Amino acid sequence: MALTDLSKDLAIGIDVGGTNTKFGIVNHRGEILEKGEIKTDNFPTIEGFIDGLYSAINPMIEKYGKAHVKGIGMGAPNGNYYSGTIEYAPNLQWKGIISLSKMMSAKFGIQCSLTNDANAAAMGEMIYGAARGMKDFIMITLGAGVGSGIVANGQMIYGHDGFAGELGHTIIRPGGRLHPGTGHKGSLEAYCSATGIAVTAKKLRAENPSSILNEVPEEGLDSKAVFDAAVKGDEVAKEVFRYTGQILGEALANFIMFSSPEAIILFGGVIKSGDFILYPTKEHMEKNLLPIFQNKVRIVFSELKEADAAILGASALVWEK
Amino acid sequence: MALTDLSKDLAIGIDVGGTNTKFGIVNHRGEILEKGEIKTDNFPTIEGFIDGLYSAINPMIEKYGKAHVKGIGMGAPNGNYYSGTIEYAPNLQWKGIISLSKMMSAKFGIQCSLTNDANAAAMGEMIYGAARGMKDFIMITLGAGVGSGIVANGQMIYGHDGFAGELGHTIIRPGGRLHPGTGHKGSLEAYCSATGIAVTAKKLRAENPSSILNEVPEEGLDSKAVFDAAVKGDEVAKEVFRYTGQILGEALANFIMFSSPEAIILFGGVIKSGDFILYPTKEHMEKNLLPIFQNKVRIVFSELKEADAAILGASALVWEK
Repeated sequence: MALTDLSKDLAIGIDVGGTNTKFGIVNHRGEILEKGEIKTDNFPTIEGFIDGLYSAINPMIEKYGKAHVKGIGMGAPNGNYYSGTIEYAPNLQWKGIISLSKMMSAKFGIQCSLTNDANAAAMGEMIYGAARGMKDFIMITLGAGVGSGIVANGQMIYGHDGFAGELGHTIIRPGGRLHPGTGHKGSLEAYCSATGIAVTAKKLRAENPSSILNEVPEEGLDSKAVFDAAVKGDEVAKEVFRYTGQILGEALANFIMFSSPEAIILFGGVIKSGDFILYPTKEHMEKNLLPIFQNKVRIVFSELKEADAAILGASALVWEK
Repeated sequence: MALTDLSKDLAIGIDVGGTNTKFGIVNHRGEILEKGEIKTDNFPTIEGFIDGLYSAINPMIEKYGKAHVKGIGMGAPNGNYYSGTIEYAPNLQWKGIISLSKMMSAKFGIQCSLTNDANAAAMGEMIYGAARGMKDFIMITLGAGVGSGIVANGQMIYGHDGFAGELGHTIIRPGGRLHPGTGHKGSLEAYCSATGIAVTAKKLRAENPSSILNEVPEEGLDSKAVFDAAVKGDEVAKEVFRYTGQILGEALANFIMFSSPEAIILFGGVIKSGDFILYPTKEHMEKNLLPIFQNKVRIVFSELKEADAAILGASALVWEK
């Protein structure tokens, strides 16, 4: 195939979230030529959702020419790379086991591949972002939940059944904080997700009446509000990040002793807290590592815009095939 | 190359332990044609150790014909696959960074490859043992220490620097039992190694004067002695295994959510305790898994004789090249 032909190849990347589904048409250089989104929770049935996607995306496909579109890549919560299914995703309203990639391929007449949202983000980072050229890294997404994508020997680790990389659900504090979704106690996600940080902030501000965090209304107490208070010098706000960073750092040390990655890539809303969370994370990560691992593993913030990373990562599934 | 020629290919497998070093000459079918051992701790210098190995192994090589010997594979504590070095192994007397595979290749005139002892055991299990045909599994060696070898996508996970798979040093009980070797608190090895089990047994028998474990002399209180007492129905001995199994099971759940293996292979002296440790391990592993992982991952005991697995695994490095 001539180079000029190859450069016209396009992929559709779709990132399915609990609230919004974002999509874009992407070229070989990782440029998003056009993008859009639909409301995931507007569609009570999966058939309706796929029809909604088709109405939104097909005009893009026709504009650039269907022959150029080499495939559709999707990232979705609990998306399984091997089976192409979504299985019992807690934050999606379609329950049971859904053959998403098969249904999408049939509707669009274009081959569709699926993986989970964190794996898609990791792939976006590997091909277009902070993990370019790395063969061994771990991506941790710190958002409403804590997700992960693991790359070793240059390959995504899917495990024997496609479900590898649920690091948010590893137990870091046995008997610790209850995760309302899973019923387990002490998981990384219970502490280091945006929700977990809000729980910590509520607890600490109640114990410290002088903290300016007490001026924030209950529903606005998110990691952004804690960050703003920390910037103003509030010690309680800083302690929220120090505590979160300690648990994240301890978890990262365990992960490093598993796969010895070159870097940990952090991604998601929580990283906007910057050094407030980065410094304690590094400190406690190093403290819990064996000497052979110390001062070797970089913690890097994602280089991609959050919305773009998910679309780019999903589209990368097409090139990987 | 004709099949008859290939069938004559031989490999040397060497397992370097803190006390003994075992070796054998192995054919393509995994048969150990001859084996032997030397005392590792008789050799204060690495040069002396290599001379000792040469004196013991070269007669075997000459007997079968040097032309047939395709390589030497070694497993050693802290052995690094990429660099061919042993770095600061806590239970070997040669300190610093030792270029073991280079020195061995020079002495024998045969290419030598190195990996750590647990990775070698995992490779032995993958090629000749309980993990035959598996592409995703985790090997946990429960001996004087707790080691591990991780295989994903059919490949050994070495990490970016060759040090992946130190699962014995992951922290399972933050702030818990001190590991005298590392100074860290609450690592898997502090509880589930033979040494860890003895610590638990000492603590529990002191709290329970009626336990028959109190009849065992201090220096004989190992997992074998606890097993014997459990067989006789001693409840304290059973509790030692229940507690050890709980911590091991919790750790395995974390590992499974990392790489989603088809099976966990357990290996080493501690597995002689059989169901006393297996049942609580399974129970607590399942309890700590997300539903998508439950009742899927088998816990399997190694099928290889302990001494043979290490030699076979080390020799497998030669075929892998």
